[in-house]
Amino acid sequence: MTIKDIAKACGVSVSTVSRVLNNHPDVSQSVRERVQAMVESSGYIPNNSARDLVRTQSDAIGVVVRGRGNLFFSAMVKTISREIDSLGYTMVLHFIESDDDEVMAGAILEREKKLRGLLFLGGRFDYSAETLAPIGVPFVCCTYTNCFGTLSDSDYSSVSVDDYQTAYRAVKTLIDLGHRRIAVVLPDCADRSISELRYKGYRAALRDSGIPFDADLLVETDGCFEMPETYAGTGRLIESGADFTAVFTLSDTTGMAAIKALEDHGRHVPEDCSVIAIDGITVSEYVTPTLTTMVQPVEEIGRESVRILADMIEQRCTSRHLRLEAQLRQGGSIRRI
Amino acid sequence: MTIKDIAKACGVSVSTVSRVLNNHPDVSQSVRERVQAMVESSGYIPNNSARDLVRTQSDAIGVVVRGRGNLFFSAMVKTISREIDSLGYTMVLHFIESDDDEVMAGAILEREKKLRGLLFLGGRFDYSAETLAPIGVPFVCCTYTNCFGTLSDSDYSSVSVDDYQTAYRAVKTLIDLGHRRIAVVLPDCADRSISELRYKGYRAALRDSGIPFDADLLVETDGCFEMPETYAGTGRLIESGADFTAVFTLSDTTGMAAIKALEDHGRHVPEDCSVIAIDGITVSEYVTPTLTTMVQPVEEIGRESVRILADMIEQRCTSRHLRLEAQLRQGGSIRRI
Repeated sequence: MTIKDIAKACGVSVSTVSRVLNNHPDVSQSVRERVQAMVESSGYIPNNSARDLVRTQSDAIGVVVRGRGNLFFSAMVKTISREIDSLGYTMVLHFIESDDDEVMAGAILEREKKLRGLLFLGGRFDYSAETLAPIGVPFVCCTYTNCFGTLSDSDYSSVSVDDYQTAYRAVKTLIDLGHRRIAVVLPDCADRSISELRYKGYRAALRDSGIPFDADLLVETDGCFEMPETYAGTGRLIESGADFTAVFTLSDTTGMAAIKALEDHGRHVPEDCSVIAIDGITVSEYVTPTLTTMVQPVEEIGRESVRILADMIEQRCTSRHLRLEAQLRQGGSIRRI
Repeated sequence: MTIKDIAKACGVSVSTVSRVLNNHPDVSQSVRERVQAMVESSGYIPNNSARDLVRTQSDAIGVVVRGRGNLFFSAMVKTISREIDSLGYTMVLHFIESDDDEVMAGAILEREKKLRGLLFLGGRFDYSAETLAPIGVPFVCCTYTNCFGTLSDSDYSSVSVDDYQTAYRAVKTLIDLGHRRIAVVLPDCADRSISELRYKGYRAALRDSGIPFDADLLVETDGCFEMPETYAGTGRLIESGADFTAVFTLSDTTGMAAIKALEDHGRHVPEDCSVIAIDGITVSEYVTPTLTTMVQPVEEIGRESVRILADMIEQRCTSRHLRLEAQLRQGGSIRRI
């Protein structure tokens, strides 16, 4: 069966069938469904070169990666690259700084590279329909959700762990080992993004165990997720004379930087201070002590994000929200006190 | 001045001017030069959308990245991405395993994505004209050279440190501190690639200091540059009872894995054993002790590789070979004995 046969059987023009096959928006829903049903029942396989001729869009998927030193995202990009390839798309990778606006970066990329869809690796959690208006293609929030925002769930997809729960479990792990003076080093506790959500998990774990919050044990690093800033922040905490037996950080690399600051100040981990983090990257298994951390399923998050985006692009779904579970990796950086 | 004016002034057709502007090969050298001179003197700026219509090639540069856990390459990809963007190209990133053939991966990518050029991040050093025949676009060997191969220097470009010299200097640093029993943990000492070259640097440094080579101090990790294999290899070395006071590894991540293996076997670094490496990634600054390493100029290697490739694509040069200098980072993982 050729494209002409399908057009004839549906009583539409060949160009209309083309538009449906290429997900062109300018087709009525009823015609789209009719053509799709016919394509499916006929087993018609679009000829690639013919499709190339009529295709108005590229095969490009934009991947906007936030944060220059984010090794968790570096690991994920490899999985995402493989998955995008295997589904026949082309990855267009774009790095932004921690404080750049991923929506604007994505919108520019969309126009320049004629994207079919966007994956955001890291972003704000407070999108509204207005803030997302510049984005004209399907997108997936990869590693985060929109829990502070007003954007309708049906207007985007997301794949992530539950940040609040994961932070809660990390801090609860420390509390269960007898810690009550638990410091937290994080970028910003009110960023309407990942920091705020994990910070809320920290606060909730303290509260549920009857431990009062102590502002002296909170260090913010000016919105920055990088190692040098976390090292400096942990140093300030130690030098402030604050009394704490454990530190919770939001990522493995910042956890490693915190351990380094503690060691450089003569406080051994875990003997003098416990450290727990979130991520589970390979390199943190090969430091001494091995970092105890909540391991995010990095491969699954990357793979599912791409699959969902492809489903959205190819109109097999309009949106999907997937919450995955982090698992505690028993390292050597925490101890019972 | 429009493309028609340029065509008229050169006495050629508009499509010939288009072919020159888009580096289409099917134009005689004399016509190409005439048109290019006219374009330059006229200050004509090609209209992008018009150029899109006549362009037969994409604006894609393929970047083939070798090794799944290579954090040095992860850091470099960010610089490369920024530079490719700023020169108006699109990066097509492709990851391969340590033992995959980058030439074949590049050739497939070239055809699938209609590449204008290729950057290889890591590869073999023994190319011949025959092995490179599948590659039909300009390419740059990024972080390596072709020192074991027969491919003519004028047929490709390269940007890297001098691997032999850098390894030599690392090992000489240990020797200058009194070490004579220096182990080396590496993927493969005869891979016709980076391992072999750095291994030769290690051997030369020993030889020039009158230290006999001891095969008991050599550990190969089956061609693998990853942390788990290096950890296991270092463990075998320790358990063999071999007598050594220092370890040289070829990368920061493998250096970190070696330190972890030593510590897990009760040998403290640097008190009981010194460790030196090559790379200089951020994360190895934040382990305890800070890894002493030969820092490669990662940003410069990435940036210059892209610039040279763009020069080749746009026919401003046919090839260029750039050797950059690594600098010793004084960490805490080596000591005088």
